[in-house]
Amino acid sequence: MTRSNPLRDAQDRRLPRIAGPSGLVIFGVTGDLSRKKLMPAVYDLANRGLLPPGFSLIGFARRDWENEDFAQIVHDAVKEHARTPFREEVWQQLVQGCRFVQGDFDDDNAFETLKHTIEELDKAQGTGGNFAFYLSVPPKFFPTVVQQLKKHGLAEQTEKSWRRAVIEKPFGHDLKSAQELNSIVHDVFPPNEVFRIDHYLGKETVQNILALRFANTLFEPIWNRSYVDHVQITMAEDIGIGGRAGYYDGIGAARDVIQNHLLQLLALTAMEEPASFDADALVAEKTKVLGAVRLPKELGKETVFGQYAAGWQGGEKVVGYCEEEGIDPHSKTDTYAAIKLEIDNRRWAGVPFYLRTGKRLGRRVTEIAVVFQRAPHSPFDDTATEELGQNALVIRVQPDEGVTLRFGSKVPGTSMEVRDVSMDFAYGESFTESSPEAYERLILDVLLGDANLFPRLKEVELSWQILDPIEEYWDKHGTPARYPAGTWGPVEADEMLARDGRSWRRP
Amino acid sequence: MTRSNPLRDAQDRRLPRIAGPSGLVIFGVTGDLSRKKLMPAVYDLANRGLLPPGFSLIGFARRDWENEDFAQIVHDAVKEHARTPFREEVWQQLVQGCRFVQGDFDDDNAFETLKHTIEELDKAQGTGGNFAFYLSVPPKFFPTVVQQLKKHGLAEQTEKSWRRAVIEKPFGHDLKSAQELNSIVHDVFPPNEVFRIDHYLGKETVQNILALRFANTLFEPIWNRSYVDHVQITMAEDIGIGGRAGYYDGIGAARDVIQNHLLQLLALTAMEEPASFDADALVAEKTKVLGAVRLPKELGKETVFGQYAAGWQGGEKVVGYCEEEGIDPHSKTDTYAAIKLEIDNRRWAGVPFYLRTGKRLGRRVTEIAVVFQRAPHSPFDDTATEELGQNALVIRVQPDEGVTLRFGSKVPGTSMEVRDVSMDFAYGESFTESSPEAYERLILDVLLGDANLFPRLKEVELSWQILDPIEEYWDKHGTPARYPAGTWGPVEADEMLARDGRSWRRP
Repeated sequence: MTRSNPLRDAQDRRLPRIAGPSGLVIFGVTGDLSRKKLMPAVYDLANRGLLPPGFSLIGFARRDWENEDFAQIVHDAVKEHARTPFREEVWQQLVQGCRFVQGDFDDDNAFETLKHTIEELDKAQGTGGNFAFYLSVPPKFFPTVVQQLKKHGLAEQTEKSWRRAVIEKPFGHDLKSAQELNSIVHDVFPPNEVFRIDHYLGKETVQNILALRFANTLFEPIWNRSYVDHVQITMAEDIGIGGRAGYYDGIGAARDVIQNHLLQLLALTAMEEPASFDADALVAEKTKVLGAVRLPKELGKETVFGQYAAGWQGGEKVVGYCEEEGIDPHSKTDTYAAIKLEIDNRRWAGVPFYLRTGKRLGRRVTEIAVVFQRAPHSPFDDTATEELGQNALVIRVQPDEGVTLRFGSKVPGTSMEVRDVSMDFAYGESFTESSPEAYERLILDVLLGDANLFPRLKEVELSWQILDPIEEYWDKHGTPARYPAGTWGPVEADEMLARDGRSWRRP
Repeated sequence: MTRSNPLRDAQDRRLPRIAGPSGLVIFGVTGDLSRKKLMPAVYDLANRGLLPPGFSLIGFARRDWENEDFAQIVHDAVKEHARTPFREEVWQQLVQGCRFVQGDFDDDNAFETLKHTIEELDKAQGTGGNFAFYLSVPPKFFPTVVQQLKKHGLAEQTEKSWRRAVIEKPFGHDLKSAQELNSIVHDVFPPNEVFRIDHYLGKETVQNILALRFANTLFEPIWNRSYVDHVQITMAEDIGIGGRAGYYDGIGAARDVIQNHLLQLLALTAMEEPASFDADALVAEKTKVLGAVRLPKELGKETVFGQYAAGWQGGEKVVGYCEEEGIDPHSKTDTYAAIKLEIDNRRWAGVPFYLRTGKRLGRRVTEIAVVFQRAPHSPFDDTATEELGQNALVIRVQPDEGVTLRFGSKVPGTSMEVRDVSMDFAYGESFTESSPEAYERLILDVLLGDANLFPRLKEVELSWQILDPIEEYWDKHGTPARYPAGTWGPVEADEMLARDGRSWRRP
């Protein structure tokens, strides 16, 4: 997958990875994601010198815009949201390649215009026929767009140039729909040219899981069932559904977060060491571990789904999910989900992985906590150490990115009392480099053809295989447990861990 | 060894450990140690409520003082050097038990007076006949003092009361002299009643080595030859010999520091888990590991002794050791010593322990660095990780007490570059409790009869057995390597590690 950038094969790979001649087409360019993430990321990459001089950006949408209007929109989005400082000369170069194509997704003329625009840019900007199509559109439009790309010859690979599809989650809403979607996309684009965005994989802290585990000697020897008691993977949001009612209702927390983000975090945390960081080697290990995931036997006891009721958050009274605008007052959609998984392999047999996510929880935090067993024997007085927790390595994905190690230390004084303390590593303090946004990394990878941070078809399918039986069970049995907004989820989730003699971390 | 304090046997050992009825006699009470450490420690213990109400303090020296003069000296020393705030009511209680006995060490009358003073205090203060004799005197006076104690019946144990001897290093200057000294002391006091002070063992950070290793799950699995590359134990001082010329010349750095402090740190770092923290269990493990220490085969290559020459320190020009006042200009005394040891047991075979100490080094620091092997395989590009060091766990004994974990982390950016970062735990930030001074802990332990922080006879002998051949070799071969004051020791010490493909940490 390094064909697009000979630098990747150079002796010294620390040379910056710079995209070769190429362009990006964004469908759904008027949406939030496009303005807040994609346009700024393109600018930041250009500003960092990682895009080719003639890089081109084509917006495709229904709006009645001219190129100049589109350029203005990009300009404003960059000024507002870019991570790096605005530099006029970078912008002036970038704007040379900005184009807008107006039309509906089923409008053949629009796609012909798109085709001509690409050909024009190949000549004017030297994009070499290499284009990535970013489908920042609701999934129901995926089939139409990819089929239009095919119909108008826009998806054709040549010996000298590539065409790629970039798709955002949800990748279906269950295994069946995911397979249907995948067959439509793969009918048009070869598997290697399809990039599924899970923006969590673009986060520095998530990539650091691999560095932490495999560039060090310290952690891997204890990263197994002999020393690990259990693992907690949490993605908590403090916000409600905001303006996403239309998307969210009927989908819910498990499909929205566990199926992709949390199962990917589980895979990176639990997988064996890959032979290399090539996409194929990585995906091989990730699919191995996802394939070894075992569902709980008693879904009623070892999974919990919940829905936020009215409550207080950040000093403000907020409404319950069913009172949110655009939501069916009788909706059974889960805004909270907690599940217990085990991994049937030699390394992890018997070690529970607890995954949880929710909206309107105590605060916004994503973390992976590897909680270790208690020391098998303690020469200390029991009474002096009874408050001692378990050792834990916590990878703080966001916010406050870093790593925390929790361990016992002697309390100063004239007896041998031991108490939990923390060691801390914070990205912000240790590196002068500021972290690129996930989308910078991912868009650059798409242009380079580097697929190692993108879930493959097989991973998506395995993740649905894990989730489908749980969703079916929830669908058949009862209603979501209520929890007041601003709390840490339903009581049932606490009870679920209490039955195992454990408790959720309060991060 | 818990006979003196029934609280130690109580169910809840977190009850404060409070000394029973007792008193302390200090020989050499006019010295620096007494004023700066012992008197303040006694006050701090009293202030913390850890001494009995009638606790008594007897000073013994040649000075022509009355009780009131002595009380004034103690008062001033406490005001100047105590860790805890001065409280008049605590002082008023303490001063009730302050007595001074004037005399030479060979003065029979003085020891009779001492005897009467003790009997008087037993009646007036209720000290119950329990007295510890602290020999804060040059070792040449040890025999005289202990024999006088015996002669005047001051060292007699009864069923109801104890008498203890507390001695400060140096415990001899080689194995033979140590054995002679020990036989003199043990002729008078039973082994259990002899407390050898190594004040390093009273430091919180040193006691925490045991908590760190054995109260946690994290470290012990990698604390062995399979994962540890080597260990570095450093005690560096920035000062020269100051006013200690008379003591220091002819003794040198190895005898002054390695024989006691550094070999004790080695023992605590390398020993197996003790069955409990009772003195007997601890000493059993420490002697086991000290007994397994193997001397280097080539003493000329694997040990280095040095002496500081003139140089710059803290922006000031300082003289070399041989120009110091009171030092023979041709002295061959080592002010720097570095030795490589191995430990012949299953856990440590083949893992070098590098010990070094010196005066006039870069800065004042004592630390134990457990340096781990590199990861056995790295899926990362070599070129992207070439600056990656080895993982290390550093126990910062002083100053800046705490623990640092050094490991590799991904550098923020769009490539998989890994760089060393640190996690840090600092006592000062994690505990509101301020750390007792080593002497507080140790004096309290003497009064309680808790011997687990005091090196036993066997340990002292084993340590000399390790050091003697090295000292003999240095004595026979050549002169100390010179290093400019303010640097990190002689070039030869760097070369010694370089031959092993390693380098000293610059702490």
